[in-house]
Amino acid sequence: MKITIINGPNLNLLGSREPDTYGSQSFETYFEDLRKKYPEVHLDMYQSNVEGELINKLHECGFEGEGIILNAGAYTHTSIGLADAINAIKTPVVEVHISNTMAREEFRHKSYLSPVCKGVVLGFGLRSYELALQSFL
Amino acid sequence: MKITIINGPNLNLLGSREPDTYGSQSFETYFEDLRKKYPEVHLDMYQSNVEGELINKLHECGFEGEGIILNAGAYTHTSIGLADAINAIKTPVVEVHISNTMAREEFRHKSYLSPVCKGVVLGFGLRSYELALQSFL
Amino acid sequence: MKITIINGPNLNLLGSREPDTYGSQSFETYFEDLRKKYPEVHLDMYQSNVEGELINKLHECGFEGEGIILNAGAYTHTSIGLADAINAIKTPVVEVHISNTMAREEFRHKSYLSPVCKGVVLGFGLRSYELALQSFL
Amino acid sequence: MKITIINGPNLNLLGSREPDTYGSQSFETYFEDLRKKYPEVHLDMYQSNVEGELINKLHECGFEGEGIILNAGAYTHTSIGLADAINAIKTPVVEVHISNTMAREEFRHKSYLSPVCKGVVLGFGLRSYELALQSFL
Amino acid sequence: MKITIINGPNLNLLGSREPDTYGSQSFETYFEDLRKKYPEVHLDMYQSNVEGELINKLHECGFEGEGIILNAGAYTHTSIGLADAINAIKTPVVEVHISNTMAREEFRHKSYLSPVCKGVVLGFGLRSYELALQSFL
Amino acid sequence: MKITIINGPNLNLLGSREPDTYGSQSFETYFEDLRKKYPEVHLDMYQSNVEGELINKLHECGFEGEGIILNAGAYTHTSIGLADAINAIKTPVVEVHISNTMAREEFRHKSYLSPVCKGVVLGFGLRSYELALQSFL
Amino acid sequence: MKITIINGPNLNLLGSREPDTYGSQSFETYFEDLRKKYPEVHLDMYQSNVEGELINKLHECGFEGEGIILNAGAYTHTSIGLADAINAIKTPVVEVHISNTMAREEFRHKSYLSPVCKGVVLGFGLRSYELALQSFL
Amino acid sequence: MKITIINGPNLNLLGSREPDTYGSQSFETYFEDLRKKYPEVHLDMYQSNVEGELINKLHECGFEGEGIILNAGAYTHTSIGLADAINAIKTPVVEVHISNTMAREEFRHKSYLSPVCKGVVLGFGLRSYELALQSFL
Amino acid sequence: MKITIINGPNLNLLGSREPDTYGSQSFETYFEDLRKKYPEVHLDMYQSNVEGELINKLHECGFEGEGIILNAGAYTHTSIGLADAINAIKTPVVEVHISNTMAREEFRHKSYLSPVCKGVVLGFGLRSYELALQSFL
Amino acid sequence: MKITIINGPNLNLLGSREPDTYGSQSFETYFEDLRKKYPEVHLDMYQSNVEGELINKLHECGFEGEGIILNAGAYTHTSIGLADAINAIKTPVVEVHISNTMAREEFRHKSYLSPVCKGVVLGFGLRSYELALQSFL
Amino acid sequence: MKITIINGPNLNLLGSREPDTYGSQSFETYFEDLRKKYPEVHLDMYQSNVEGELINKLHECGFEGEGIILNAGAYTHTSIGLADAINAIKTPVVEVHISNTMAREEFRHKSYLSPVCKGVVLGFGLRSYELALQSFL
Amino acid sequence: MKITIINGPNLNLLGSREPDTYGSQSFETYFEDLRKKYPEVHLDMYQSNVEGELINKLHECGFEGEGIILNAGAYTHTSIGLADAINAIKTPVVEVHISNTMAREEFRHKSYLSPVCKGVVLGFGLRSYELALQSFL
Repeated sequence: MKITIINGPNLNLLGSREPDTYGSQSFETYFEDLRKKYPEVHLDMYQSNVEGELINKLHECGFEGEGIILNAGAYTHTSIGLADAINAIKTPVVEVHISNTMAREEFRHKSYLSPVCKGVVLGFGLRSYELALQSFL
Repeated sequence: MKITIINGPNLNLLGSREPDTYGSQSFETYFEDLRKKYPEVHLDMYQSNVEGELINKLHECGFEGEGIILNAGAYTHTSIGLADAINAIKTPVVEVHISNTMAREEFRHKSYLSPVCKGVVLGFGLRSYELALQSFL
Repeated sequence: MKITIINGPNLNLLGSREPDTYGSQSFETYFEDLRKKYPEVHLDMYQSNVEGELINKLHECGFEGEGIILNAGAYTHTSIGLADAINAIKTPVVEVHISNTMAREEFRHKSYLSPVCKGVVLGFGLRSYELALQSFL
Repeated sequence: MKITIINGPNLNLLGSREPDTYGSQSFETYFEDLRKKYPEVHLDMYQSNVEGELINKLHECGFEGEGIILNAGAYTHTSIGLADAINAIKTPVVEVHISNTMAREEFRHKSYLSPVCKGVVLGFGLRSYELALQSFL
Repeated sequence: MKITIINGPNLNLLGSREPDTYGSQSFETYFEDLRKKYPEVHLDMYQSNVEGELINKLHECGFEGEGIILNAGAYTHTSIGLADAINAIKTPVVEVHISNTMAREEFRHKSYLSPVCKGVVLGFGLRSYELALQSFL
Repeated sequence: MKITIINGPNLNLLGSREPDTYGSQSFETYFEDLRKKYPEVHLDMYQSNVEGELINKLHECGFEGEGIILNAGAYTHTSIGLADAINAIKTPVVEVHISNTMAREEFRHKSYLSPVCKGVVLGFGLRSYELALQSFL
Repeated sequence: MKITIINGPNLNLLGSREPDTYGSQSFETYFEDLRKKYPEVHLDMYQSNVEGELINKLHECGFEGEGIILNAGAYTHTSIGLADAINAIKTPVVEVHISNTMAREEFRHKSYLSPVCKGVVLGFGLRSYELALQSFL
Repeated sequence: MKITIINGPNLNLLGSREPDTYGSQSFETYFEDLRKKYPEVHLDMYQSNVEGELINKLHECGFEGEGIILNAGAYTHTSIGLADAINAIKTPVVEVHISNTMAREEFRHKSYLSPVCKGVVLGFGLRSYELALQSFL
Repeated sequence: MKITIINGPNLNLLGSREPDTYGSQSFETYFEDLRKKYPEVHLDMYQSNVEGELINKLHECGFEGEGIILNAGAYTHTSIGLADAINAIKTPVVEVHISNTMAREEFRHKSYLSPVCKGVVLGFGLRSYELALQSFL
Repeated sequence: MKITIINGPNLNLLGSREPDTYGSQSFETYFEDLRKKYPEVHLDMYQSNVEGELINKLHECGFEGEGIILNAGAYTHTSIGLADAINAIKTPVVEVHISNTMAREEFRHKSYLSPVCKGVVLGFGLRSYELALQSFL
Repeated sequence: MKITIINGPNLNLLGSREPDTYGSQSFETYFEDLRKKYPEVHLDMYQSNVEGELINKLHECGFEGEGIILNAGAYTHTSIGLADAINAIKTPVVEVHISNTMAREEFRHKSYLSPVCKGVVLGFGLRSYELALQSFL
Repeated sequence: MKITIINGPNLNLLGSREPDTYGSQSFETYFEDLRKKYPEVHLDMYQSNVEGELINKLHECGFEGEGIILNAGAYTHTSIGLADAINAIKTPVVEVHISNTMAREEFRHKSYLSPVCKGVVLGFGLRSYELALQSFL
């Protein structure tokens, strides 16, 4: 089983960025724990701050594996291009958010991605990724 | 560990209601399966079509147990009263939806409950309940 | 032939409530007249001020008979739950209103029920019920 | 008793136009059936695709007879001029629609005519005309 | 000096139509009085309920005379075509309304014509026409 | 003199619910104090979390006594049914709120009840009830 | 016959202010010409940049004379206080504007004053005042 | 105990202005009655039609006394400056309105002042001032 | 091959109307050039300022030929009736505009016709017609 | 070189008003420091809480000196009259704000003044005035 | 003659992506056909999923050649940066879309690019590119 | 002291791009002048048309130096990702614009960046950068 995690803008700063909202653990540490906990899953990770490179990555891994876990960060709320990419590929995508985006600014309530994703998990901190992963098992 | 599942309006018809959207399994069957799979959890279930009775139930089980899994159905989009109830109680609440509400009518995109819930899981069919349950484990 | 009339909030006050808008005849009197005029129809009537009980009633009579005549009163404009219930049942539903809701306050122009009903009759006073009944004959 | 049916734009194509939405019967055939079924009513019919000619017709027959049945088609949603004409005449007007306009595009939900009509009947197919006719009997 | 008065939909009913709003004098009587009071002006009058015929008339008299007085009635609020016609011709146009459109329904507050007219006179009853006429003297 | 206090959803939790917003006194204690302070008033109290039961109560006590003090809680902002009930009854109703609803979320600024109530008192804590009571003396 | 002209903010700069929009004649010069042309009218003039002083002036001359000609300038679009003052007094008020406000910025299309004025004249340059004056003759 | 009543625009006309809405008693008479009824309160009164002078007055009496009762009239709906002034001073302010502003035009439903006031009393006629006064006792 | 060009309101003035926006060539001259350049196409042309006559024409030529080129002018932005006509006929319709409507007033950005046309060509001056014609070849 | 600083409503309370937002220094102290630091500039200061007096001041100093620094406070967001005054005068105006108005309430994001000012400086505390001053050097 | 075709996000997947909407031909194949059919044109092609690289490309080829054909895909609806780039360069740009964007989701109806392009061609499938090309010949 | 200037899309064309709006000086020339004028400041400059690379740069220099001067060009109005990056870093950011964005198209009035920046300077031409620089001194 092959699952790819794709992280969008500013998620490379996880751990140092706004710890009240996003927690103080870096994504790398969390990712290693996840890998260890689910040895049966071939788990990959990619991060970019560039919208178009996230589209490239979706194209690249969108015709293989069992699932994609996508946290598109701020692009969630503005990117029709990412939504089109999800529509264009074959691998099912689950949308995750660390924070409860619905409890934050009005502009974070809109997601262009949700309607084209298989499901959405939000608000459980880094745990959101694991729940998304479990949805594929 | 004690978890209560609260289901809102029309979810008693699950299995017969719009199978294209909600699947053809009744909730009772699914609930029994869940109970068997998680014997370590004391799992309760309540359903009502009356908004005020859902509020009553939240009050009743909102000061005990480890968590509440709430699928408020159509009241999700219109009930400030349920949101106030979640705010008023102590037990954390996870919001779930069987269908991907974000891929349906505009009026289903708004949730009064999400901002006051611990997290949200939507679009995974009945599986959404299990993912919510796992979030408490 | 079996037809059920379901009346929503405040329609129990018909005859005493705002006679300029709703007329001065009670619904019971009108209903008896209707029954006499259409002896070939098995005509039932139910009224409740509780949204969830109206949903219960729709579930109860929604898999039998030839039609339901629904005047959901104020819930017409706010209840997604009633709309979902109409969608979930099999018996066709006709929406009626005594007053011309389109000639009243802006918030009465929106109906969540119309899109899922078979047809709509509004503005003919109590006569609206009879026209709805005739639509099933 | 004299009743005039006035049909607006594109209704001359009834039977050939979008049969999924409007059915496959031509209005002329239906009209003849209606005339036969209600021999006691002097029933007239007029159709035009020109908004101003519909206003002319309302002026012409608006001070005689017992009622006007108006299906203004697409002008329903945009014509303040037709609404003003209905307001200016004496004969009561009932608005009808063949399709359930409330279940179609957002721009068909608004009717300038409803607030100045005696009543509204919509969604019963061609049967809507007969129900409107019965409202005058 | 040549001035043309162009009246739009329903203004042919003036005197009989909604006398509370528009007064009880017919336009013909008023027009004759106006002609007598201003013998030095060659005063013409045209009325139609058809939007396109009003455009035709504007084209016809839009390259001659000193001015056009236009009461486009309900088309004021919806007709971009009339606004384009005013823009396309040479003779200056003054917009008039008998009633105070700004004190009526919201949809009468918008005028597509005002921005392309030389000036606007509204709310003085039939007197509005005379004030518009004086603006050309 | 007879005055009825009607409390809506979640007000049964007063004292334990969000004490920063609503204070830490239970309504029962406050109500007893009020009764003692105004022995000349026959003061009743009713609470329900069910919208339709609040409508029932308004019907029941709406044709007797000198006044009703209504804190409809969250239903204030969404219930057309309660507004219709107030319109349908004879006893004057005063709307009260413990918190300053205008200083809270946008969706609490709208009240369907205010336009049909005799007056509104909001923001004075539990004291709001007493001011409403004094308005009837 | 007594008529008062009241001018609002920035109209004291007429002649020097944005001559493309407002012309290059000062209001004083124009006012003298008007006085000479209509010797039978007792014509007064008042200008202030202070909203409250314009309200004071309306109160002062609002119970005498035959008419008030009001160019409230920028306050036209924002002042409910001036509208209330017009409503509170007895003397009829005609609203005038030098420029065609409907052909300018969106925020100038809204007038709080129009609905409570007897009539509106706009877009004829300084001539607008004379047309307003003639409306009182 | 020192309480200051501040009245905004057009309230000096009370008694003569729109008696259907505001009653026929002048504020001076009412104020004298209030003073006599509450001899223990040092009660002052100030009225101005000028927004800035109301701000001046708030500054002047905003650091002394026990309370300010403010009826800002039309400025309620448009003045951010008054709201800022209330925020800037120390003495608590209660907002009052004579009429039920929520039952009037849409633009009167918005209050910039409510969110920064201690409480709001509206719709009780002149009695609103007394209720506000009692809130300070 | 048979293609019909249908022109809407004010396009008869082409060449004299607003030459900065629409150019100075009359449509007749252009049409003759087009006919000569494409001798293999049976090319017809129709113009009317009346919305209903444009609908009539669409009905007339909508069941024959290979294509219709429609420049509905101002009706593009307001006519649901024309959109319904295009939907009702069989011949494919291409929408053209001489000017770049998207670079003009906000109200010209909306087209009721685009969603039901085969394609859209806009902004190329009279050349737009030729490109539309080429789309059928 | 002559520069005038004009301060609007509530800025006279600087130092005592909401120190978290506006700091604890009085404007007078700051102004004296500024004068000393820029002895080559003839620096004047004016403050008023009255919108119309601010307009008067702009008229007075708007045809002399090198620049005006305007902090219109709350009037920034509502005053078309001040914007018109800036447009009417010759001296360039720079808009300043002490706080970051874009990080505060939605209604403070709109400025009627910005489009007619030479430039805008906001959010630097009292330092904003100095930066505006430097823009003129 | 030199023409550059620039394709935006997801257009590299043409042929495999949503064939119902975009057809099953790859762009490369189509491009080769186009090149062969128009040997007199020096035709180049560029594709990127990165918004900023599309801006780079516009800068690079925006000061040479006779035209640019731009299908910006999803960025059409959100990119002010691309619109600014088109404005900044000299070579005229024609906007094309394969699908009829006006018949799809609401968010695809808005184009930031249309107002700054020479013309727009949409809805003709891949043929749209050829029509755009012909517009330059 | 270390200050970094970050320029967004199309600012590399400064000098050649829309000189009426942005002036005819290249940024490089201006930057050299600035460096010479402030030798005590270590001044760096970076430009990219790619949103994600601007985020990268903010991350890179966001934990060192005394300040960042950011002109995000068109991304100012659409990029939540840049706003999140500013929030995530430590170095204070000042937002600058060469043109007066508030005097341009509506869509340029919204800035996602302003609320998270230390201050904003706009409309002073290239001088805006220097004022921003001075704010750090």
